[in-house]
Amino acid sequence: MKTRDEALALDRDDPLAPLRNRFALAPGVIYLDGNSLGVPPVAASARAQAVIGQEWGEGLIRSWNTAGWFALPRRLGDKLAPLIGAGRDEVVVTDTISVNLFKLLSAALRMMAERDPRRRVIVSERANFPTDLYIAQGLIEQLDRGYTLRLVDDPADLPDAIDDETAVAMITHVNYRTGYMHDMASLTHLIHQAGALALWDLAHSAGAVPVDLNGVGADFAVGCTYKYLNGGPGSPAFAWVAKRHQNTLAQPLSGWWGHRKPFAMDPRYAPDEGIGRFLCGTQPIVSMSLVEAGLDVFLETDMAAIRRKSLALTDRFIELVEARCAGHALTLVTPRAHAQRGSHASFEHPHGYEIMQALIARGVIGDYREPHVLRFGFTPLYTRFVDVWDAVETLRDILDTEAWRAPEFAARHSVT
Amino acid sequence: MKTRDEALALDRDDPLAPLRNRFALAPGVIYLDGNSLGVPPVAASARAQAVIGQEWGEGLIRSWNTAGWFALPRRLGDKLAPLIGAGRDEVVVTDTISVNLFKLLSAALRMMAERDPRRRVIVSERANFPTDLYIAQGLIEQLDRGYTLRLVDDPADLPDAIDDETAVAMITHVNYRTGYMHDMASLTHLIHQAGALALWDLAHSAGAVPVDLNGVGADFAVGCTYKYLNGGPGSPAFAWVAKRHQNTLAQPLSGWWGHRKPFAMDPRYAPDEGIGRFLCGTQPIVSMSLVEAGLDVFLETDMAAIRRKSLALTDRFIELVEARCAGHALTLVTPRAHAQRGSHASFEHPHGYEIMQALIARGVIGDYREPHVLRFGFTPLYTRFVDVWDAVETLRDILDTEAWRAPEFAARHSVT
Repeated sequence: MKTRDEALALDRDDPLAPLRNRFALAPGVIYLDGNSLGVPPVAASARAQAVIGQEWGEGLIRSWNTAGWFALPRRLGDKLAPLIGAGRDEVVVTDTISVNLFKLLSAALRMMAERDPRRRVIVSERANFPTDLYIAQGLIEQLDRGYTLRLVDDPADLPDAIDDETAVAMITHVNYRTGYMHDMASLTHLIHQAGALALWDLAHSAGAVPVDLNGVGADFAVGCTYKYLNGGPGSPAFAWVAKRHQNTLAQPLSGWWGHRKPFAMDPRYAPDEGIGRFLCGTQPIVSMSLVEAGLDVFLETDMAAIRRKSLALTDRFIELVEARCAGHALTLVTPRAHAQRGSHASFEHPHGYEIMQALIARGVIGDYREPHVLRFGFTPLYTRFVDVWDAVETLRDILDTEAWRAPEFAARHSVT
Repeated sequence: MKTRDEALALDRDDPLAPLRNRFALAPGVIYLDGNSLGVPPVAASARAQAVIGQEWGEGLIRSWNTAGWFALPRRLGDKLAPLIGAGRDEVVVTDTISVNLFKLLSAALRMMAERDPRRRVIVSERANFPTDLYIAQGLIEQLDRGYTLRLVDDPADLPDAIDDETAVAMITHVNYRTGYMHDMASLTHLIHQAGALALWDLAHSAGAVPVDLNGVGADFAVGCTYKYLNGGPGSPAFAWVAKRHQNTLAQPLSGWWGHRKPFAMDPRYAPDEGIGRFLCGTQPIVSMSLVEAGLDVFLETDMAAIRRKSLALTDRFIELVEARCAGHALTLVTPRAHAQRGSHASFEHPHGYEIMQALIARGVIGDYREPHVLRFGFTPLYTRFVDVWDAVETLRDILDTEAWRAPEFAARHSVT
């Protein structure tokens, strides 16, 4: 892709191009932050009106049954399942990634305590998204039974770190900062060979890259609906539990939504059969309902097509940045190998923060992650090849003219 | 109130009557279930459009700062605080009651383990809303350190049950089924005299009855925004922690939103100062934003005025049912004494389920709670005295004509 015309030609040939019309895109913006917050599906606004006006306003309390509110966490879970290689009754959309990690990590440790109580180590990466590590730390401190969190500094160190002391390996499939993607199949195999359980965080995977949880035989997973799935700001997360584990697991957030008969009002907790026991409390129905508008767009394509376009976009973005911004101290931190790359591309630059502010001021929205990382997400449902071209040209101009040195772009630690 | 005209006269004299216009009420419905799910404020629909169209659609990721999404859990907490006698920086709107109970109960047990480790008993009522008991059971099982849940069958048994083994008394202020209201001041005093901590569930209190958490010196509280506060179906719950405890408490759901510097991406958890450490993960912003539309209506009145009308409504409802439905096996289970009554009134009837179905079919929406209870909620912001009259007349007719015996109203266990 050497010219803007070539980019436009790629867009004309793109089989996913028509899906861009399913989204309400802000005019004058090139949005490369769908890996942090996806854009609104066109259907979201009308869906919210229907939920507020008809379901809430007219149906009132009856809508728990008549509008299917009670069933939403499981129904949306079933709709999401094919995107991550899961089956029916294996996924619930509920709560947050942090809360779901707590449930699954608790359940995993308890399962392992019965199977092999000497295993007291949770293995993860120091570069994992922090909340995953914080939740493990909070649980370890609460249990106060000698559990430890073992962190590796390099993905290549994971095989050595996962051993006969390991209870659970809690791994994020695609790294939020670098875009590095693990080989889920071989790592799950390795974890199981070591006698441990595999808990995957799919925050930057669901809707972005093909995932086959049942195919690789994983044990647990959590993920996000507000990034590539376009569910809306802070829309509820999801939890997946392999069918073989569901009925043997207990999790401590045993609220009434996980009860076998929530309306029998029994004072004793009795967990639901199956995935239902991973629910806890009443969910935010308006935000939940919008998740469906995002998922519905995926019914018009498949993850293989999305992956093809994702790699084509990140390939071209990396090539163009390296060709047209050469000599500007930008260092690619995202793997070049397709098998190790998610759907975003990140470059380090000593003035990454200021450069990103200058880009945003010109309508090219990526984001900045400490330290030094300019992060650009590519969302094949609505990102065009011409957006790649235009974004790189804007970046080039900002670097060539040193526009990022303007005082208004200086780091103000607004996000610390 | 002996005639419908008297009811209409009371409405004409009602200082809260104009606030009814702040709500989008379904035509042809007398809604007496605001204690389960409040109605939509008129402002909710436009607010959702603005959040989806402008904040999400145009502001995109920038709205976390520019639209104040990051600040929402605390800003809404501050707005809610005056309704429950709390101060600034003491309340967060977040997660669900179940999840918040888990945080606060964990923190309370841990605090007490340091202060007096022999105290291993959580005291509550068998008639408490089940999820409160389930969460305590889940936590006790997870900790596996000899904690027990001691349940009393009668509120009068609480003083004896709270003793020098008690770590926490977890009490729901207004009972979801009977409408019985505890004396929060004297019970908190008694709990503290016994050396224990007081955790209050305000699900049926916030926005319904005056609450003075700081005045009574309580320790912790949780509550709901989707009942009397009209925040929308499943809108996020709230948590309150007395200022004196905040910085000494640790809670295990230590997600990144509770971190001192969430965007520093430090792999080690460090709790925020103050109430912020009781946050965990990213919140559902569309549902969160609607909570404000509900809270804003309360700025136009005060809890004393709401309480006066609430008691006037429940008094008249009880009187009318007992006068006009006499001889129909209805038994009041809600206390007659004002000091012991929340904002709903419940009657037992052996065919309570069928009778409620018949009422709903005629547009009088209350709800049914196992076993045998017809529950009617009175929400002074939008319930009229004439609604009380008309609801009782409909009930009377259904009983007099035995309309509830129609096969379509038979119990189908649809909610078990």
